[in-house]
Amino acid sequence: MAEISLRRARTIIRETLKKGRDMGLKPLSVVVLDAGGHVKAFEREDAAAPGRFAIAHGKAYGAVMLGMAGKAQMARAEQQAYFMAAVNGAYGGQVIPVPGGILIRDKKGNVMGAVGVTGDTSDNDAEAGLAGIAETGLEGEA
Amino acid sequence: MAEISLRRARTIIRETLKKGRDMGLKPLSVVVLDAGGHVKAFEREDAAAPGRFAIAHGKAYGAVMLGMAGKAQMARAEQQAYFMAAVNGAYGGQVIPVPGGILIRDKKGNVMGAVGVTGDTSDNDAEAGLAGIAETGLEGEA
Amino acid sequence: MAEISLRRARTIIRETLKKGRDMGLKPLSVVVLDAGGHVKAFEREDAAAPGRFAIAHGKAYGAVMLGMAGKAQMARAEQQAYFMAAVNGAYGGQVIPVPGGILIRDKKGNVMGAVGVTGDTSDNDAEAGLAGIAETGLEGEA
Amino acid sequence: MAEISLRRARTIIRETLKKGRDMGLKPLSVVVLDAGGHVKAFEREDAAAPGRFAIAHGKAYGAVMLGMAGKAQMARAEQQAYFMAAVNGAYGGQVIPVPGGILIRDKKGNVMGAVGVTGDTSDNDAEAGLAGIAETGLEGEA
Repeated sequence: MAEISLRRARTIIRETLKKGRDMGLKPLSVVVLDAGGHVKAFEREDAAAPGRFAIAHGKAYGAVMLGMAGKAQMARAEQQAYFMAAVNGAYGGQVIPVPGGILIRDKKGNVMGAVGVTGDTSDNDAEAGLAGIAETGLEGEA
Repeated sequence: MAEISLRRARTIIRETLKKGRDMGLKPLSVVVLDAGGHVKAFEREDAAAPGRFAIAHGKAYGAVMLGMAGKAQMARAEQQAYFMAAVNGAYGGQVIPVPGGILIRDKKGNVMGAVGVTGDTSDNDAEAGLAGIAETGLEGEA
Repeated sequence: MAEISLRRARTIIRETLKKGRDMGLKPLSVVVLDAGGHVKAFEREDAAAPGRFAIAHGKAYGAVMLGMAGKAQMARAEQQAYFMAAVNGAYGGQVIPVPGGILIRDKKGNVMGAVGVTGDTSDNDAEAGLAGIAETGLEGEA
Repeated sequence: MAEISLRRARTIIRETLKKGRDMGLKPLSVVVLDAGGHVKAFEREDAAAPGRFAIAHGKAYGAVMLGMAGKAQMARAEQQAYFMAAVNGAYGGQVIPVPGGILIRDKKGNVMGAVGVTGDTSDNDAEAGLAGIAETGLEGEA
């Protein structure tokens, strides 16, 4: 499975931000992690709150480390909150279990990395991120 | 009391993985800790998510440190979530209070260590781990 | 004092990477932090080691937090290593006191943020980062 | 680049331990990390000290995250100790810059992961680990 390229990471971020503008969302912050959960690229729009990197990162990082995208993590948190809280602890606080953490898969279904989007409502964050991934021809699982 | 040997730790892991294959489970990750809570052996099956070591470790570590296997920890978490959350904090995030953390005892009931299994549902993780321990002639408390 | 804009942050990163290509450097990773030390943008070139975000961030973060760019931090470390080691501890490990952490100042000398560059030798990292900042019309202090 | 398989990880560990026995070394502990720095497999020989997982892990983790094997990290530490100390801080204490952290590469030179060996002298640890990797047909960079 190929490493996600910087070129694709840039496309994902730019197209996510563009979707956010089209949807009239609040300023977004978008991170792309590789399949090992390491930061590949990130952008925080002007007027976004200063701490948004950690939220975007936490959404994406939990997705890669667990193999569970944001919606699935949220469902688990709703059903067994102490489990997701413990998982957050196990990963040093770096897991934010809500929509906006999107697994990036190639055509064969292999995980290539994850996108983390934050800034508006979680559902809007996820919608913008899926649009960003779609522009690369890769598959997104929100 | 004897330390759990590497030979037994390998048997537990291999037989746990074998049970997982027989049960048709998702890829599993299995850790064996000694009676002091220190890592003795670990294996993560191919296609398992990259972060599974921390989950397997958290299940087993909480079991050894508290002398409480996964089911008992989960019961406590269900009943007094803030206690188990605080315990997670006290152990640097390394306690995951759900089934799959199994105490290993010798025939006299002394704790020799713990197994942590993750990858499928918690109940299936625990079932696979108990089968792994059974192959060594030791006792497992899930 | 104005916040560093995403547009300027992108220019800094792209021009730093371009300078790296022109100089024939190893793959670079570049972060831009705002005046509060918060991540604004980041890119890691293909084939760069997975952990480079932390090194780039550490160079830039120490620069902003102390108001001391990389060369000054290195001089301090050479002369009083236990001080810089203690500072590293005080900031949760997030200070890497070598060239490549560059303060970004406006024409009036106000700090607008910092750039962190890593991937080649520290001196080459710093040279590439200064070129990146120069393209925005802002001042860089390495 | 393919993920390192569990089968290869087991071979590396077993052959490293076997080399250790042939060399008459003290009890060894061996970890295999994947290309993202995540734990794939680990074994600690009987009579090894309980805390050896962290040392083996630290040798391998630094190697993957920095793209620098143990000997190169040690050379850097000898020459610029405050830099490697800061890097240790940036990675939460998980970098041990001495021989025994060995990069695993495929025939094309791509990093597939790393091995961390501890228990005897660092040079002997590295020699055993290189022998372990050699048995898989992969390349080791110590």
